[in-house]
Amino acid sequence: MMKRLLITGAGGNLGRQMRARLGDLAEIVRLADRGNMEPAGENEEVVTCDLGDAEAVSKMVEGCDAIVHFGGQPVEAPWSVVKNANIDGMYNLYEACRIHGCNRVVFASSNHAVGFFRQDEVIDNTIYPKPDGLYGVSKVFGEMIASMYFHKFGIETASVRIGSCFPEPSNHRALSTWLSFDDLERLIRRCLDVPKLGCPVIYGNSANTANFWDNSKVAWLGWKPQDNAEDYRAEVDAAREKPAADAPDVVYQGGGFTADGIHQE
Amino acid sequence: MMKRLLITGAGGNLGRQMRARLGDLAEIVRLADRGNMEPAGENEEVVTCDLGDAEAVSKMVEGCDAIVHFGGQPVEAPWSVVKNANIDGMYNLYEACRIHGCNRVVFASSNHAVGFFRQDEVIDNTIYPKPDGLYGVSKVFGEMIASMYFHKFGIETASVRIGSCFPEPSNHRALSTWLSFDDLERLIRRCLDVPKLGCPVIYGNSANTANFWDNSKVAWLGWKPQDNAEDYRAEVDAAREKPAADAPDVVYQGGGFTADGIHQE
Amino acid sequence: MMKRLLITGAGGNLGRQMRARLGDLAEIVRLADRGNMEPAGENEEVVTCDLGDAEAVSKMVEGCDAIVHFGGQPVEAPWSVVKNANIDGMYNLYEACRIHGCNRVVFASSNHAVGFFRQDEVIDNTIYPKPDGLYGVSKVFGEMIASMYFHKFGIETASVRIGSCFPEPSNHRALSTWLSFDDLERLIRRCLDVPKLGCPVIYGNSANTANFWDNSKVAWLGWKPQDNAEDYRAEVDAAREKPAADAPDVVYQGGGFTADGIHQE
Amino acid sequence: MMKRLLITGAGGNLGRQMRARLGDLAEIVRLADRGNMEPAGENEEVVTCDLGDAEAVSKMVEGCDAIVHFGGQPVEAPWSVVKNANIDGMYNLYEACRIHGCNRVVFASSNHAVGFFRQDEVIDNTIYPKPDGLYGVSKVFGEMIASMYFHKFGIETASVRIGSCFPEPSNHRALSTWLSFDDLERLIRRCLDVPKLGCPVIYGNSANTANFWDNSKVAWLGWKPQDNAEDYRAEVDAAREKPAADAPDVVYQGGGFTADGIHQE
Amino acid sequence: MMKRLLITGAGGNLGRQMRARLGDLAEIVRLADRGNMEPAGENEEVVTCDLGDAEAVSKMVEGCDAIVHFGGQPVEAPWSVVKNANIDGMYNLYEACRIHGCNRVVFASSNHAVGFFRQDEVIDNTIYPKPDGLYGVSKVFGEMIASMYFHKFGIETASVRIGSCFPEPSNHRALSTWLSFDDLERLIRRCLDVPKLGCPVIYGNSANTANFWDNSKVAWLGWKPQDNAEDYRAEVDAAREKPAADAPDVVYQGGGFTADGIHQE
Amino acid sequence: MMKRLLITGAGGNLGRQMRARLGDLAEIVRLADRGNMEPAGENEEVVTCDLGDAEAVSKMVEGCDAIVHFGGQPVEAPWSVVKNANIDGMYNLYEACRIHGCNRVVFASSNHAVGFFRQDEVIDNTIYPKPDGLYGVSKVFGEMIASMYFHKFGIETASVRIGSCFPEPSNHRALSTWLSFDDLERLIRRCLDVPKLGCPVIYGNSANTANFWDNSKVAWLGWKPQDNAEDYRAEVDAAREKPAADAPDVVYQGGGFTADGIHQE
Repeated sequence: MMKRLLITGAGGNLGRQMRARLGDLAEIVRLADRGNMEPAGENEEVVTCDLGDAEAVSKMVEGCDAIVHFGGQPVEAPWSVVKNANIDGMYNLYEACRIHGCNRVVFASSNHAVGFFRQDEVIDNTIYPKPDGLYGVSKVFGEMIASMYFHKFGIETASVRIGSCFPEPSNHRALSTWLSFDDLERLIRRCLDVPKLGCPVIYGNSANTANFWDNSKVAWLGWKPQDNAEDYRAEVDAAREKPAADAPDVVYQGGGFTADGIHQE
Repeated sequence: MMKRLLITGAGGNLGRQMRARLGDLAEIVRLADRGNMEPAGENEEVVTCDLGDAEAVSKMVEGCDAIVHFGGQPVEAPWSVVKNANIDGMYNLYEACRIHGCNRVVFASSNHAVGFFRQDEVIDNTIYPKPDGLYGVSKVFGEMIASMYFHKFGIETASVRIGSCFPEPSNHRALSTWLSFDDLERLIRRCLDVPKLGCPVIYGNSANTANFWDNSKVAWLGWKPQDNAEDYRAEVDAAREKPAADAPDVVYQGGGFTADGIHQE
Repeated sequence: MMKRLLITGAGGNLGRQMRARLGDLAEIVRLADRGNMEPAGENEEVVTCDLGDAEAVSKMVEGCDAIVHFGGQPVEAPWSVVKNANIDGMYNLYEACRIHGCNRVVFASSNHAVGFFRQDEVIDNTIYPKPDGLYGVSKVFGEMIASMYFHKFGIETASVRIGSCFPEPSNHRALSTWLSFDDLERLIRRCLDVPKLGCPVIYGNSANTANFWDNSKVAWLGWKPQDNAEDYRAEVDAAREKPAADAPDVVYQGGGFTADGIHQE
Repeated sequence: MMKRLLITGAGGNLGRQMRARLGDLAEIVRLADRGNMEPAGENEEVVTCDLGDAEAVSKMVEGCDAIVHFGGQPVEAPWSVVKNANIDGMYNLYEACRIHGCNRVVFASSNHAVGFFRQDEVIDNTIYPKPDGLYGVSKVFGEMIASMYFHKFGIETASVRIGSCFPEPSNHRALSTWLSFDDLERLIRRCLDVPKLGCPVIYGNSANTANFWDNSKVAWLGWKPQDNAEDYRAEVDAAREKPAADAPDVVYQGGGFTADGIHQE
Repeated sequence: MMKRLLITGAGGNLGRQMRARLGDLAEIVRLADRGNMEPAGENEEVVTCDLGDAEAVSKMVEGCDAIVHFGGQPVEAPWSVVKNANIDGMYNLYEACRIHGCNRVVFASSNHAVGFFRQDEVIDNTIYPKPDGLYGVSKVFGEMIASMYFHKFGIETASVRIGSCFPEPSNHRALSTWLSFDDLERLIRRCLDVPKLGCPVIYGNSANTANFWDNSKVAWLGWKPQDNAEDYRAEVDAAREKPAADAPDVVYQGGGFTADGIHQE
Repeated sequence: MMKRLLITGAGGNLGRQMRARLGDLAEIVRLADRGNMEPAGENEEVVTCDLGDAEAVSKMVEGCDAIVHFGGQPVEAPWSVVKNANIDGMYNLYEACRIHGCNRVVFASSNHAVGFFRQDEVIDNTIYPKPDGLYGVSKVFGEMIASMYFHKFGIETASVRIGSCFPEPSNHRALSTWLSFDDLERLIRRCLDVPKLGCPVIYGNSANTANFWDNSKVAWLGWKPQDNAEDYRAEVDAAREKPAADAPDVVYQGGGFTADGIHQE
């Protein structure tokens, strides 16, 4: 059991879910976010931190054995926002890891790092990325920071290109990209448990029947998702009109993000 | 013949060389740098511009048909320096291209985007990058910006991962990575001439006998380098002690950069 | 729900099976064959059509939203027979689709398009075909017509290389190639339901333990077969002598077809 | 030296050229075409033959040791024309080979068998074809007939996907696809000389600097083209306006054929 | 049912297990070992044989229809020991097979034939081996003997690179490499039953969630392991300290063997 | 310049050639063979050594900085001969290297390590071997010993799969497999000069127009052969009858070796 686990973005969608599930992994779970979080429970610490603030990030990381990094800007946004949270934020986080000797990170990368691949292409984790916006570019940047700090300093990171992580798949694209909370939890536990993690890129979706992501090259990790978005197809069909054949949600892996312009300040 | 060609980094090593060679490509060649440049000659314009200054970049790009982008921080440096020139700088440049309708760029990326590959691995342009420092990470960031603006807005970029572009190969690693000025010139001409460029990644080295970069997937472009670093092997052997088998210059494609720490401000 | 679905070859083995199962997919199911069919039931239309007769094919296709194309010559035969049904027939069908705006087809291609691959080779849908007779050649021709009409006119086709589609696997080779009627039905439903089909080639066999066909590149489609020929191994072993090691049924994916000569008129 | 070599399409562009060059390969060269040919010279026989006429084809092939098959419809045409010459014609030719024991063929396939690949894709001879019209489909059909007669009966064929075989490259696309007459001659000689030919697919272009076809998998054959369309780039640039970036001649390997409709009778 | 099946190494771990399970495969099961074995039961023959003794091996093989070859030195040992049992032994065995017409062998190769691959690499059966000691080298030698006797004389062998075949996975590495006795039995039965075996290399582990071996290229064989080491993870975690990140058991597929020196006589 | 270079097999075909050429590489060249050699010249030492004699091999290696290992049985032979020279011999050689700290070897492996690949297959150095006899198996064994001593002890070896190394190509197969003495010399010099060699497999043939070996993955080494067997084709055609299509010399890369039986004592 590790001494202190840091969960960033602890006030967000995934952060709240995983906070409720991962408490047994460490003597103390440090929870960080820029904004509101539930007050600290037993064995918890709560820290407010802007990822763009190097000093604050350094303090946040100090004393932690591992990090589950959900923090950062989670969707497309103007450049200054993306840059502060996901560019400066990643640099600050890994500098803090390097300085304080924190050597393992689960990094919430995103399918938007490869959003311009088509949905009828099956890709694995060796492909050259095709980000679908500033947000997607910032996620590739994050993966590259992780790669560089691994090769240079041995800090291990699992870059998880999360698909659609919600209670249920809510549209037709999510029938392929859905990641259940249970499967995410199992993945994080595996990444934190494995003696040697290295720096793998992992697609974060459940065992969906419809699937354009190939995780066969990380089979060694020992994570097999258990849930399947297909169980919700009838519900989605009932709730949503079938998208047109040329809708971005049908053409590209990144869905609607690919059709977005550059967000202005 | 195009109306106006922009060469950034015109005061630097490659910028000065190409300024002297590419004058016939446009009615006017606009030369930009943050620092000193030779005064404008015939058919030339000279512009001073900090790439981190969005407004200045916008003015620099306005009216240009194509860009040869040598500008930016050319070696490892503290984060704020790399970020200003190569992160903000790339965002600013492509926003300016998008706004002013400049649709073709030759971008000086770098072998340091893949510097942690070993020298006994032959890699092509489909591999997932392994940058060897903040500078290398910033070059992958630049490639990703280019990729995204291509898929979203049709702006075409050749990302040239330049090896060692000097008058002659000056050390043993450069016997593999050397790019002659003549071969660089031919490459830029090809990239600006081809009716449809797309967004290829191209390794920038000459036809060196010793070679760990495979450009076979961009054979369609019609660039065949003509020079060969091997012609200088005896000179290099005479001038330089043979490096040790575990020297970074021998082990990794990125050479000494891989052994560098994080440069502090 | 589509207005009118055409099932060709409706009097044949697969046509009869799918007629009984797919009635809910359209307001009207038009059934076509050259020969005898059961009379039209509710919501059914019955059309007699020789695929080699362009005019008749045009009328057959007119008004249809999608086609399940089982029609054509289903086994090796003399050239004039294969040509009429599978060469002229495919040209006529796609011309009719183009003219009448029918944009989705499920085409019953065949494992005999790749029959000369060995059974100890696992092939996916990117391989260059190796047909095992005139019939197999005609099936590749059909796939090529489909490919061309897709790239030129946007007509989408799933070319399903059907293995052995019978109630049960009836010989040792079929333990690998068997496709259950239930799995075929599921596949057709998926191909007709997916918003964007494109022009994939799909191997048509069930989830057989023994398997030389790799559908991983069409995982995005969301079809997972459920049945397994292995459940019938004991039966097959009991009913049939084990074939010799050099029997075509054991050596080649196409089985006995590979040993056939050219059928003469 | 073989006894009798058959050159079909002897009255066409390539047939006339090769007739003038290959006379030393056999005691007698039989020349066949549907239309006009120069009268027979020394050691020559002249035969008129419609490829769609099985009996005539049988007579044409009888007594020949090898065939250089340039015959057939050489560009897009209505279905009945393509079918007669390239579909029936190929069946007739290989039946005649089988019956009369002619075991080696050099078949003029075409780049239009793969015309819908993009010009910025480098393809080798293992790819699944993407024909760009009825003509292209008929050429894949011909390759499949060749493949089947090889695997079933041991008749060996080199399917040469000829690019643009003219005295000089006459447009920008041909700077990639050009095949000089000299290189074609060398290729045919190699295919007829090699003791074991098998059934390879070979891209038929010269050693052009700009090139999207990869023949590395037939390096064993021992054919290295010597000419280079690049030598004509200045001429082409002078004679022809640079095509637009979205012109079919720039986008697709098959050039303008991809933009054609279906030719009607 | 075959007449006589030979199981070598019948006194060892796997030999004893399979002796108890495979009795129904032949009228007589001949059991061989250098050392002690249980006395012959019904339908059994017991033979003592040193594999390095050509004459004894010849007698052992005579009259057998198939061989399950567990015999030989099973772990690292001094050269003379490895050579006698696994080098001379394999030569003797296949010479005996050739002379006596025994045409099918299941050969217990070992994961130590590829022990220097890292555990975070997923390898299939086409890779060039990386043995981790004299024992591993001898196993590649055995595979090569099998390959050569197959191509030259048609003797078929399944080379099974057995992982960790014990009642339960007993350490963390075995959570990936474990092969249950049941899965081994099923594999042997399949290899002896299939009409045409050829000469495949098969990784011998169960359907473990954590897995670095890819058997997809032998899917045609029809062996699907059923057991999963993951079911024992909690037990292993409880019984064993988690290994360090740089422990050979964590870094390399061959585990501790990679850290061994050369055993001296 | 190294102190002492050992050339084994110095009395054989390649050994004599390279003895005459490599004298400048070391202060002393030690020449070893089992049989007759020319007396030691200036800067030479001559040693008689049976490779199967561990003690003799140890003495032979002691004091050497690098080894060019041509020694061993050079063609098919009875098992005891192959075993003594190429099995025991390789073990003895690498044990001596390990004990005496000799860390670089150029090992004359052979095309017979892959002799059962067909001549119409182009293979690179990653393929799983297919040896064509006991000799070929022994050469794979040698490569494996080299691989193991590299991964375990850091001893670097270039395993050169030599084709046909003679003054001129003397038959049709050699038009593909010929390696000129000049090209071999250049290769050995490169392998001994490069600061970090690792453990590559290299195909040893010249820049032959007809070629089934792909060295692209060792391009980093900086060896480009200069000679071309094609220059001798007319001579070979004149001197030798063209082999039949099913002659082993035409079918398999290993040529006639594949048709050999097992040599008996």
